Amino acid sequence: MKPTPDAATSTPPAAPDIRPFFRPASVAIIGMSSKPGSAGQVVLANLVNGGYQGPIHLVGRSGGTLGERPVLTDISQLPDGIELAILMLPSEAVRDAVQACVAKGIRGAVCFASGFAEMGEAGRQQQQEIAAIARAGGLALLGPNTVGYFNYADAFYVMMVPLVLPPRLNPEDGPAIAIVAQSGGVGAHIAASLLARGVPLSYMMTTGNEAQTGLAEMVRFYAADPHTGAIVIYAEQIRSAADFLDAARAARTQGKPVIMLHPGRSEQSQAAAQSHTGALAGNHAAMQLMARHAGVLVVDTLEEVIDVGQLMLRYPVPPTGGLGLVTASGAICGLAQDYVEPLGLAMPALSAAQAEQLREHLPAFLPPRNPLDIGTLSAYQPSILATGVATLLADPGIGSLLVSMPMPEPAASVEWLDYFLQGAAGSRKPAIYVMQNEDTPPADAFVALARKHRAVIMRSPERALRALACATRFGQSQAAARPAAASGPALATAVLPAMRPGAQAEWMGKQVLRALAIPTPAGELARTLDDALQIAASIGYPVVLKAQAAQLAHKSDAGGVLLNIADAPALRSAWQTLHDNIGRAVPGLALDGALVEKMGPRGLELVVGASRDPQWGPILMVGLGGVWVEALGDVQLLPPDLPHEAIVGKLLALKGNKLLRGFRGQPPADLDAVADVVARVGHLMLAHPDITEIDINPLVAYGPGRGVMALDALVVTR
Amino acid sequence: MKPTPDAATSTPPAAPDIRPFFRPASVAIIGMSSKPGSAGQVVLANLVNGGYQGPIHLVGRSGGTLGERPVLTDISQLPDGIELAILMLPSEAVRDAVQACVAKGIRGAVCFASGFAEMGEAGRQQQQEIAAIARAGGLALLGPNTVGYFNYADAFYVMMVPLVLPPRLNPEDGPAIAIVAQSGGVGAHIAASLLARGVPLSYMMTTGNEAQTGLAEMVRFYAADPHTGAIVIYAEQIRSAADFLDAARAARTQGKPVIMLHPGRSEQSQAAAQSHTGALAGNHAAMQLMARHAGVLVVDTLEEVIDVGQLMLRYPVPPTGGLGLVTASGAICGLAQDYVEPLGLAMPALSAAQAEQLREHLPAFLPPRNPLDIGTLSAYQPSILATGVATLLADPGIGSLLVSMPMPEPAASVEWLDYFLQGAAGSRKPAIYVMQNEDTPPADAFVALARKHRAVIMRSPERALRALACATRFGQSQAAARPAAASGPALATAVLPAMRPGAQAEWMGKQVLRALAIPTPAGELARTLDDALQIAASIGYPVVLKAQAAQLAHKSDAGGVLLNIADAPALRSAWQTLHDNIGRAVPGLALDGALVEKMGPRGLELVVGASRDPQWGPILMVGLGGVWVEALGDVQLLPPDLPHEAIVGKLLALKGNKLLRGFRGQPPADLDAVADVVARVGHLMLAHPDITEIDINPLVAYGPGRGVMALDALVVTR
Repeated sequence: MKPTPDAATSTPPAAPDIRPFFRPASVAIIGMSSKPGSAGQVVLANLVNGGYQGPIHLVGRSGGTLGERPVLTDISQLPDGIELAILMLPSEAVRDAVQACVAKGIRGAVCFASGFAEMGEAGRQQQQEIAAIARAGGLALLGPNTVGYFNYADAFYVMMVPLVLPPRLNPEDGPAIAIVAQSGGVGAHIAASLLARGVPLSYMMTTGNEAQTGLAEMVRFYAADPHTGAIVIYAEQIRSAADFLDAARAARTQGKPVIMLHPGRSEQSQAAAQSHTGALAGNHAAMQLMARHAGVLVVDTLEEVIDVGQLMLRYPVPPTGGLGLVTASGAICGLAQDYVEPLGLAMPALSAAQAEQLREHLPAFLPPRNPLDIGTLSAYQPSILATGVATLLADPGIGSLLVSMPMPEPAASVEWLDYFLQGAAGSRKPAIYVMQNEDTPPADAFVALARKHRAVIMRSPERALRALACATRFGQSQAAARPAAASGPALATAVLPAMRPGAQAEWMGKQVLRALAIPTPAGELARTLDDALQIAASIGYPVVLKAQAAQLAHKSDAGGVLLNIADAPALRSAWQTLHDNIGRAVPGLALDGALVEKMGPRGLELVVGASRDPQWGPILMVGLGGVWVEALGDVQLLPPDLPHEAIVGKLLALKGNKLLRGFRGQPPADLDAVADVVARVGHLMLAHPDITEIDINPLVAYGPGRGVMALDALVVTR
Repeated sequence: MKPTPDAATSTPPAAPDIRPFFRPASVAIIGMSSKPGSAGQVVLANLVNGGYQGPIHLVGRSGGTLGERPVLTDISQLPDGIELAILMLPSEAVRDAVQACVAKGIRGAVCFASGFAEMGEAGRQQQQEIAAIARAGGLALLGPNTVGYFNYADAFYVMMVPLVLPPRLNPEDGPAIAIVAQSGGVGAHIAASLLARGVPLSYMMTTGNEAQTGLAEMVRFYAADPHTGAIVIYAEQIRSAADFLDAARAARTQGKPVIMLHPGRSEQSQAAAQSHTGALAGNHAAMQLMARHAGVLVVDTLEEVIDVGQLMLRYPVPPTGGLGLVTASGAICGLAQDYVEPLGLAMPALSAAQAEQLREHLPAFLPPRNPLDIGTLSAYQPSILATGVATLLADPGIGSLLVSMPMPEPAASVEWLDYFLQGAAGSRKPAIYVMQNEDTPPADAFVALARKHRAVIMRSPERALRALACATRFGQSQAAARPAAASGPALATAVLPAMRPGAQAEWMGKQVLRALAIPTPAGELARTLDDALQIAASIGYPVVLKAQAAQLAHKSDAGGVLLNIADAPALRSAWQTLHDNIGRAVPGLALDGALVEKMGPRGLELVVGASRDPQWGPILMVGLGGVWVEALGDVQLLPPDLPHEAIVGKLLALKGNKLLRGFRGQPPADLDAVADVVARVGHLMLAHPDITEIDINPLVAYGPGRGVMALDALVVTR
């Protein structure tokens, strides 16, 4: 056995070259059994049936020949320069085989075997060792525990189950969807569902345990791939956040939408994640937030990942405007109105110009509006469909379009689709044609016409509306997150006080806020009663007195906060009371002193917080104080670098946003000042990796132009 | 022209006998044109092609013959005893034709013509006149403005568009779905979608303007019909609430589920309805509430009306337990968990007994639990599917089951379905089999086996989960609403004070509450200062003084409420201040006096209200006070006769329910006492039709066993 290279001490090699997975010049199947129907023979049959043209070598202990191919008994007997090895081996044989592949200069290896990290610590170590061998040897490794993959572009299928061969990608069909999935079952479901709709696919990779290559590598490959126009991801665990986000940004730079489904958002899953990481925001929420911030369209359901994938492949620019609707059934107008309202998708009135233009084409009894009900006109003047579609799509307030029509007899179905296509031709706004009567098979000519024009056809109006709402919410959030020039506060890097690791006392937290120019009440830490009297005299009574020590987490409960101290005698007495209280509540605790602060006016209480997710980095949180946050969980999470307007948008997305807008005679809150605090906290989290948590609770907001005041502050460092 | 019978003075005849619509012994088509392809000829062809066996008579101005049939020139020439007339006439000719049909003793008439109530007032009057003629003449009238109907049971199709004949109902397929729709387009969509899935249909009626017969009549007919097992309704306007609810109850009594889709729940639609009726709850919310209370399963989407219709036809008893899941893909477990949580559908752990039973059949690495992931066992030991399904369905905590499997090659797909059917055989709990890879056509043998066993097959796991969640929420609400024996307060009919019509002053409202035994603060109306002093002396200081007049809607704003009056001198001064304030705010207003009340302790503020919807009757409302109701709209609507436990359930369904359960050191609220107040208010609304509105705001709730107190009360009478 050759010595194992030490991954920890060797210099990290460049990212593996994964091209051999996709279209290798030559292939070796390792672990070929002579038993008919064995996994190796199935893999071979799939390659051959797909029409793979390169040489295929076989290695198996039994030796002999299989058909016309010799079966070599050892990897070392293979010719040099083989690009891809497919390992049909039990887990215990994988390590040596990978080493032999490296020795032979093979460029890539696919490992189907299970029994590694998914089985526990011993398996995980074995897997790491194999990955290290591959990495050091310049071998790209897929798996272990992959269930294989499809390269539809080249009809190269590495699968160990017998295949009904899928259609090979026809480059004339235009850009295709590439899939990467961490579950073979879900990957197959997505792929089969898209293929059944005639949506072209370029690849479907399942990455298994991702010992060396995984989501990020595939996304990066797809981003550069000429066949691929959109990327669909099914993820269960993103192993390297930074790498993944980087790959996702690369895809967006290429103009390729990235759509991802990632389970784990339920309270049950989040509770598990939260108890594990101890983070403010569960790992899943952090993932969602940062993936979206990097331009990934995160969806919630299997239906959406299929539908939005199809939609965004056809229309890569997500809409920001409202919904247009053309239908031959008035009932659909009302149903759609009900349906889109909770999805946050508006159905705007038609602009005056478009209404005027449409009016000329419509009979007097048919009002030119959105939604447009063409009713029975669809039967005797079907060209109105083209006019309606074109006119609505030309409306600046309309970002996407649904056409929902009954299923007529075949000739009419084709005629209607044709008029729809005429109306939508040249528009980049997403448009879906729903032919109702779902589950009723469409005519062949209808299917052919739809595929020729890459029309997005669905059968349920609601499903189409969900897809359009997904795409629109994404488009709107992307537009909002785009930094406007000079919209945020000018933020220099703050010079912070020296802090020991751990939770800081409030007075120290407030020094951090002051360094950020976040308003705090006038006042200072008093180490003695004389200090306190002097500070109070200089800031003016009434004052508040707050016991200070890093170890004192719940100072109110310990009697460590005394309010409304009116004058010097009261302060003398309060000083004593405070120390007595703390002495009783936390015997032996040495206070840093007590914070003497001016009582501030009342206002609307908010909470602004930040935590550092170990994987996804700083995540900010805003909410309304008290019951809102505690009884309703009414908070919004934000990335740390959102522009001002987007922060204001997040504030107004709180459930209790009516309080921010002015409620029951109260003035509206100074949202600009709140957003400014959020931006400063985000800037701090980015600039100071040692700070793991910030909690400003409450941040009191006053009326417009009257600013905010941080009444309490917790800063935690590491 | 014969004299028109006066509908207003003639005695109301019995409900029309609508049987002639469905299977008439003889038919006359009135308004038959000699033009080939005319609507009359299409109707005739549809009858003939469907195989209608009775005599068909034709009436048309042109006379002559059509094929072998003579065309009579006048209705009066028809033989006696014809059961159904199909009127292919323009609107202006309908009145005379209906009269002639009545004169001829015809039992039923179908009126396709449009141009009646939907066109405005003149059309509405004409329609009423025609309805009156029909009613007086004992003629059942369908329409006007119907688009026709299908009787699949007898292959009797009254449609004026050329039909691809639908499959005739095969009685061996078991009970069928009957549809009634107020939109032809939606009715056709639902019918075609169900037929495409192989779900048997008995009828699809479109009722048009419902001049005489409509939803209620059809539902009542379906309830008694032997072919029909479930009823699907698409409604846009329920014309008679009482009649409709009565028909729905009749269907439920027959054990036939009633599933209804009724658009209009969006804020936009509700705002329109609210401004129209001025009701507290919009008409749509009232409709939903009372329809559900009558046992109608109200769904929100076209997808649900199809899916839940199919599901409830097969499993008419709605589930109340949690979801069981069996799948061959672990990923589906996580996706389903995420998906069902916001739908309120629980996925309970398997009971110990069932887990033990399952363990015997599973390999050691496969834990016996819910969700059950049988993984690759599905390939080499597929019978485990039957075991898993049977075991989960036998679990008392599980109310319904989803099986979600990939789509294997045809033979395996049939084998898996067969094992599913074996496992589910004999269970009445709803079970859906999802064969994934949606849009990929299933094998013929699979379809045949599914239809033979009436299996509910879907293709999207999420869609199946929505259907199961709908059915379960319905089952749970029905179970909760079932009155438990002696669970509510013993409510005698309250003797109320005499009230003038309109809004009552608070002191009068509180007399009503006292008559209901709802606690109010100690105190009385004082008409003079001496009265006030005497009352205060008897109840004890501190007191509150509140100006009283029916016309004084906002007494606080007018300075008409003075709190914390400590003693007699303070009361003297307050009495003067109060009258001065009111004199300034509402010059010339004569007060009834002022209410002198004991200051009560603080507690949790709620709102309890009731309003009387002109159509749907009394609707109750509960909510938390202040921002909860005003900024969040956090209210629950209730029928007036809900049992105690169901009222408590509604309270705990409030968004702010954490406050009711005890929050931040506060005790939980006395929910029993709150529910008792709600029940008493409901009882009052039912017993006193003159009361149109009640508003107890706030109702202060104290800790468990410590009761409630109504601090303010508004009663409006008519």
